[in-house]
Parts: sequence; C-alpha cells; structure tokens
Amino acid sequence: MNNFLSNKAKSIEPYTPGEQPKDKNYIKLNTNESPYPPSPHVKKAVIESRFDDLRLYPDPNVIDLKKEIAELYNVNTNNIFIGNGSDEILAFSFMAFFNKGDKIYYPNITYSFYSVYSALFDLNEVKIPLKDDFSIDINNYKNLDSGIFIANPNAPTGLLLNPSQIEEIIMNNKNNIVIIDEAYIDFAETESAYKLINKYDNLLVIQTFSKSRSLAGMRLGFAIGNENLIQGLKNIKYSFNSYTINRLSIIAGIEAVKDNEYFKDTVNKIINTRERTKIKLKELGFNVLDSKSNFIFISHKNIFAEDIYLKLKDKGILVRYFKTDIIDNYIRVTIGSDKEMDIFLEKIKDIIRN
Amino acid sequence: MNNFLSNKAKSIEPYTPGEQPKDKNYIKLNTNESPYPPSPHVKKAVIESRFDDLRLYPDPNVIDLKKEIAELYNVNTNNIFIGNGSDEILAFSFMAFFNKGDKIYYPNITYSFYSVYSALFDLNEVKIPLKDDFSIDINNYKNLDSGIFIANPNAPTGLLLNPSQIEEIIMNNKNNIVIIDEAYIDFAETESAYKLINKYDNLLVIQTFSKSRSLAGMRLGFAIGNENLIQGLKNIKYSFNSYTINRLSIIAGIEAVKDNEYFKDTVNKIINTRERTKIKLKELGFNVLDSKSNFIFISHKNIFAEDIYLKLKDKGILVRYFKTDIIDNYIRVTIGSDKEMDIFLEKIKDIIRN
Repeated sequence: MNNFLSNKAKSIEPYTPGEQPKDKNYIKLNTNESPYPPSPHVKKAVIESRFDDLRLYPDPNVIDLKKEIAELYNVNTNNIFIGNGSDEILAFSFMAFFNKGDKIYYPNITYSFYSVYSALFDLNEVKIPLKDDFSIDINNYKNLDSGIFIANPNAPTGLLLNPSQIEEIIMNNKNNIVIIDEAYIDFAETESAYKLINKYDNLLVIQTFSKSRSLAGMRLGFAIGNENLIQGLKNIKYSFNSYTINRLSIIAGIEAVKDNEYFKDTVNKIINTRERTKIKLKELGFNVLDSKSNFIFISHKNIFAEDIYLKLKDKGILVRYFKTDIIDNYIRVTIGSDKEMDIFLEKIKDIIRN
Repeated sequence: MNNFLSNKAKSIEPYTPGEQPKDKNYIKLNTNESPYPPSPHVKKAVIESRFDDLRLYPDPNVIDLKKEIAELYNVNTNNIFIGNGSDEILAFSFMAFFNKGDKIYYPNITYSFYSVYSALFDLNEVKIPLKDDFSIDINNYKNLDSGIFIANPNAPTGLLLNPSQIEEIIMNNKNNIVIIDEAYIDFAETESAYKLINKYDNLLVIQTFSKSRSLAGMRLGFAIGNENLIQGLKNIKYSFNSYTINRLSIIAGIEAVKDNEYFKDTVNKIINTRERTKIKLKELGFNVLDSKSNFIFISHKNIFAEDIYLKLKDKGILVRYFKTDIIDNYIRVTIGSDKEMDIFLEKIKDIIRN
C-alpha cells in the first residue's frame, strides 16, 4: 500500500522528549530546566519591544545576539552560529559534517538524540562503551577514523571530562571533527572547550540557553567554532530555513547574555542545591554519580529505579527514567529549587521506608 | 584538504532571502511582509503572559495553537502540523514524503527554495515549463510518476489556479503526494484546497502566518492534511528537533488566529491596494500579471527590470529582482500600505520619465 511516506518517515523511531502530563500540577524534575525564571531584563525588553515589527522577518543572521555572545566569550561573531535550540544545531551538524554512510563515534550511554540523528541521516554509528563506573575512557577516542560527538558533562550520567582530557581527544583526532556538546557545562565549574577553537580547526562547541540561562521556552542554542565550520552550518541552515530565530527570542537571548550576574547567581544556586542533594541522597543509601550538571543520576540497591520513578510520579514529582540497557536501574533527577528538592527528598524517604 | 565539511555543506547553493540593508530606512517591498502590524491582541497576550514560564520547554505538540486553527478551519487537531515558519514544513515535507533519488515535480518558475531542498535531499527535480503567459498548464500535471509541489498562487508570478484546477491535479495523481503551498492563498479571494483533505488522501496544504497574519517575525506556518501525512511530518520533526515552536510564538499565533476580523480587514485592505496599484501601473505602460497574492510581478517594455530595481533601491524602495532566465525582465513588488504604494508609484513615474 502506498501511504505516501518516505522510508525514513515510516521507519524512524523519533526521540522522546520528557513527558508533560497535564492531569495535575507536578514538581517537574524531568527535563533539566532551570528552577529559576529568566533574568527580569528579559521580560522588560520583550514588553518594551516594537510589536508592530513582528510583521517583519527577523534578521536571518541573528547578528545582534551573536554580538552579545561574542563579547561575553571574547570570540568573533563569525565564530558563532545560532540555532532554534541546540538540538537544531545538532541536526544541522549531522548534515554539515557527515556524508551518508560515514561512521560517527559517541559513547554508548549519552544524549539519546544522537542515535536518532544517525538514523535520520543514514550514518553508521559506533557506540564506544563507557567504563563500569559510567565514565568516558578517553583512550578509546584516539586516532579514530571519523567524527566524534562528546556531551560534556555527559548525559544522563552528569560526569565530566576535564579540559585536558577534552583537549587530548581533540588533538588526537586532527583529521576528524570533534563536536563537544556542552549543554550542561555552565554547571561544571570548569573551562569550556570553546577556548580551544583557535588552536584546533576540528573543534565545534555547542551550548544552549535552555538550562543555565532559563530560556528553554524560547528555543535558543549556539555553536562556537572556526569560521570554516560555522560556514558549513550556515550553508545547511540557509538551505533548510532562512529565518530560524524569531524576533522575541532574539530579544530575550540578548538580555539573558547581558545579565551575566543573574546568570552566575542562579547557576551557583543550582550547584549548591545539587551538592546538598547529593549528600542527603548518599545518606539515604543511594548510589549518586558525581554529576557536574544540573541533574543527578542515582540508583538505590533496594528499590528498582522504575518503581522509584512511578512512585514519585504518583506523589506529584516527575523525574526521568530511561528503560535502556545498562542504565535501567537509574533515574535522572533535575536539580530544582531548594524547596522542590526538600519535597523530593521527603518523598524519596517515604518511598525507601515503605 | 580535509576541511571537515560534508559534500553537501561544501557544494550546496543555499536559498537567498530578501536583502535587509541597514544603510538607510527603506520602504520594504521585497519580502512580501504585511504592511500592517499583527492584531493588537498579540501584543496584549504576550505582555500579559507568564514570563517566569519561559524557563520551561514549550509544548512540543503545540496543541493550543492547533486547537485554534482546527476551530477556524473546521478540521481536527490531528490534521494539523505546526512549523517554525512554513519553510521548515517544506523542508520536513521533502524528508517525509520523498526518498533519496525520487523524482519531484514543480513548475520551472516557482518558489526557488524548492530547488534548494531538492539539492539538499538528493531528489531528482523535474521542472515543468509554464505557459508563455506564465500560467500553469494543468494538463502537464496529470498521471505523473512522483510527488508534486504547486505554489498557489504561484510565486513570483502571483497567478492563481482555481479550486477545480487544483482538484484536477490532485484527482489525477492518486498515487502521488500533491503538496499545495498556499503561502498567499488568503489574498486570492478563493477556496483553500484544505477543504479537500477528507476527499483525497494524497493532499497536503501548507500555509503561513508570515503574510496575511502579519507575523513573519514570529516564525509560524502550518500544514493541513490527513492524519497519515501529518504523522509522517511529526515522525521527521521529532527526529530533528522536539521543540520547534517557542512559547511566545505560540501565544502570538493563537491571538492572530482568534482575531479573524482583524485578519479579514487587513487582507481586504491589501487586496484593494493591490488592485488599485495594478491599474496605475498599467496606465504607466507596465505589463502587470494578474496577481492574486500580496505582491505583483511587473515588467516595462522601455526599461530593463534590473535597472528599475536598482533605481528604486537608490530612491529608498526595496523590491525583489531575480536574475533568472525567463523572469529576468520582471520585478516583484510587495503590496505595502496605500501611502507606501503612492510613494512607489511616484518613484516609478520618475524612473520611467528619465
């Protein structure tokens, strides 16, 4: 039967975003959003913007936002690409840096969207196993024969490679593109790899406004790399959708970058809450990975993770459970506000005791 | 030399969006935006929205906006797909309904992005020549052997196929998907093809908020079709970018759909201005195609179109000129406000006289 769909549209198994049930008001610890609202300057700038101009297309090059990011990170605007969320940049990267049939390397446990992209664009994924402690063994990432994706900190483990480990991967793959997906780097109290873009022409770094800048709702991500790589992304983008970033997201993004004090303050609060939560969970007998992200990845020897997930949901708290080999006895818990984490810890105690 | 780019990123020639020069304040008649601001309800709803919620991901299924469109057009929400501008839906359509190497049919003169998509996704485009008067001969679109794209009204000619002609194409290609790109249909004073979706399972209709709903700056488009086709688009979208539509665009879109009186009023104004402009241009010796869109496509026997384009730009008016075979003696002029078109007509008179 001809149902008009392409083979891809028929067969692909899409990525599943975190659930957003509407049956009651949940404490949402399942999609790694910030518990804090965006900078108050975001609201002010949007409200004061010229709404009549919404009739006009936005700047396809998003130069005003690029300028703010360039200033903050001390790079050139030609080193920056802006996407409709960092997922869009990931998708464009699969198109810009890989040909059909190419191999692509990433850890066996990482952001699961990479596998979906590999299927969508007919790449040949090679999943490199993590060590038993869920860490990445950088010795497995040397002198490979094709491009590499590394989420750092990794998801959903939250584990971090330090800057010298990242540099070792980059310098030992001079003929391969190395894409460092730093969605969670701002919570890691370490250097971003973007500082290496002038030293290595094979490095692309991708970040997002969805976590540390509290703007998941406005869909903004950015990549930093040398001009050649950025041009590759632009060539794909301008062949796909000229205007990917709307006017109000541009305005919101500019204010979120400008208000660096607010950014640092909220990030620090989340880090403090994370460390406090880790301690409490360990006291309750949890195995807590040393996450450097805005989420933690935990398991308990007495209760199966899926049960914890279901019981928490029943008690009004959403966390993320991946029914996937190797990690199917872990849950991923976004770091919320102190108050939210206190409620979470209380409910967790209840679950363990019963 | 390994410059890390895929063959596609190296070789593709992207679509060129209309220029947005910043050297002076132009009257912008080059990208078919509405001269009228969006409904005042858009501003009100955005300003009154919960900015704290921008920290949260938007609804990936955009159900609240789908409900408004479904109500207005009397279809089911499962018949609707929302995109980040209709260009994104076009891109997803190339992925959802065509396999690599497939033929794809469209007129030789039409929205030039179709050719870019064909190149991006390795399709085998077959361009069917327009008649000498730039109209589409529907007899050339019967019993084809692969999918078809028709922009109706066509771009950049503005010429319309009437509903029975569109239906003839659809009914005579029962084994091929027929995609009707209705970016400009609201200016055509005719029926949209979406009313045929329950009669023909091979029909997908794509529309946009960028023209008749004055929201080019917020990036919203939608497709209407049967559930199978919409599911195909969803499978691709959820394999590409889970959250393509941000929270404020959803709010803006809902208000733009709800305020149907404002919509009708501004569309009627544009139609009236278009018809008046056509008459004046004919009086000045222009060949004016009978556009049913919010732009006109014109040529003059005494002055080459590129000269008119350059002279208008010099006088502060931007129009669109395509240096393309067959249409290289035409300019495309967006219908602005009455005042803008009066200035345009005055400048045009100056150009013709000198």
